[in-house]
Amino acid sequence: MSSETSSETSSELSPTERTTIKRGRARSRSDRAELVDVLASARICHLGVTVDGTVRVLPTVYGVDFDGPDLDGTLYLHGSVAARSLVQAPDLEICVTVTVLDGLVLARSGFNHSMNYRSAVLLGRPRVVTEDAELGRALDAIVDQVVEGRSKHLRSHTKKELAATVVLALPLYEASVKARSGGPEDDDRDVAAGGVWAGVVPVSECLGESIAADDLTPEIAVPQHVLALSGGR
Amino acid sequence: MSSETSSETSSELSPTERTTIKRGRARSRSDRAELVDVLASARICHLGVTVDGTVRVLPTVYGVDFDGPDLDGTLYLHGSVAARSLVQAPDLEICVTVTVLDGLVLARSGFNHSMNYRSAVLLGRPRVVTEDAELGRALDAIVDQVVEGRSKHLRSHTKKELAATVVLALPLYEASVKARSGGPEDDDRDVAAGGVWAGVVPVSECLGESIAADDLTPEIAVPQHVLALSGGR
Repeated sequence: MSSETSSETSSELSPTERTTIKRGRARSRSDRAELVDVLASARICHLGVTVDGTVRVLPTVYGVDFDGPDLDGTLYLHGSVAARSLVQAPDLEICVTVTVLDGLVLARSGFNHSMNYRSAVLLGRPRVVTEDAELGRALDAIVDQVVEGRSKHLRSHTKKELAATVVLALPLYEASVKARSGGPEDDDRDVAAGGVWAGVVPVSECLGESIAADDLTPEIAVPQHVLALSGGR
Repeated sequence: MSSETSSETSSELSPTERTTIKRGRARSRSDRAELVDVLASARICHLGVTVDGTVRVLPTVYGVDFDGPDLDGTLYLHGSVAARSLVQAPDLEICVTVTVLDGLVLARSGFNHSMNYRSAVLLGRPRVVTEDAELGRALDAIVDQVVEGRSKHLRSHTKKELAATVVLALPLYEASVKARSGGPEDDDRDVAAGGVWAGVVPVSECLGESIAADDLTPEIAVPQHVLALSGGR
């Protein structure tokens, strides 16, 4: 086995039995911290929902609010497909997965190749957000997830925009976090045999130089909150 | 509206009615080309499957084989959770979504913020791969999806490894591709009002300098197929 320590952690922030949901508050600070970290490190999530009896997985933007109506925090996401399904099945349960790829793990055998990553899987029954104030905060949270700090530079949302916005709210109650880090785990024989390079190639999301909209007034310089993006996430 | 052309395309590579699957071969070359492009441009997918009656979305690695048993091409993916569900429900349908984020679209209003992306949603009934030769090709395809051209530098898979490998095969038959590109689409009034920077921040997956496993024989240099990764995808 590789002498380099690789680490795979898995934490459930709520009971794994789906039939009885126990509101346990005894969550370790590190579990909650891991969840918050994953949610802060991505810009899109994948929403799983049942449509006409079959599963659909749809990429969508999301935002997080820890000052909202849910004690555990709230995930907001654009969810027009899910919202339509919710109309037909108000008890609809969804799954939202946020994944951050951190590295390619190249082993000496095909079998032992892997990825370094962090992921959070959230489950629950969402509600459609209908109240304007919350819709506005949700839209702001989503904008700020895409570009940190941007929402305060924008004008207020109009009533028409809020009416046209379909947002689901999912409390961050039932979540599990998984992660892998570290080097490849190879069989001793493969390590001894040598002859093959093994290691990790780090992966990150790179943001390039911003491109102004071609109808932008020329004298508007790229603002700091956009320049700051190149620092990466 | 922004004078810059933004483009949103959506193509179905198969009929949208789920109840009757018609094997239509009249697919435009560009639709197929788009699907192939999306699948070639990512390293992980999100697998949607129903487990005990509820949806789960799980990130996983995948590989693609156009020379396999399916005319349309085959997506192979690690699917131990799904495979266990398949044992109980052999007609289980899954959804596999591959998403590539290309840009952050910053509009003048929160409402009009968006993402540039390419995504493919595949549906169907997978089969568990059981035959050794196909398992080996599937593992190779998965390794090569992570690092192009790597599988041929590795030793053969052992029988024990193949026996321990759980891979699902999904024909690339029922697929839809969606994409957005271009600048923000703002309301005329917001464009005229000015005062807010708007544009696109390109996003790509960056691969950093490779880190050798700490038990690697020092004289093995980083091979070309690993150095080539820094060119990005």
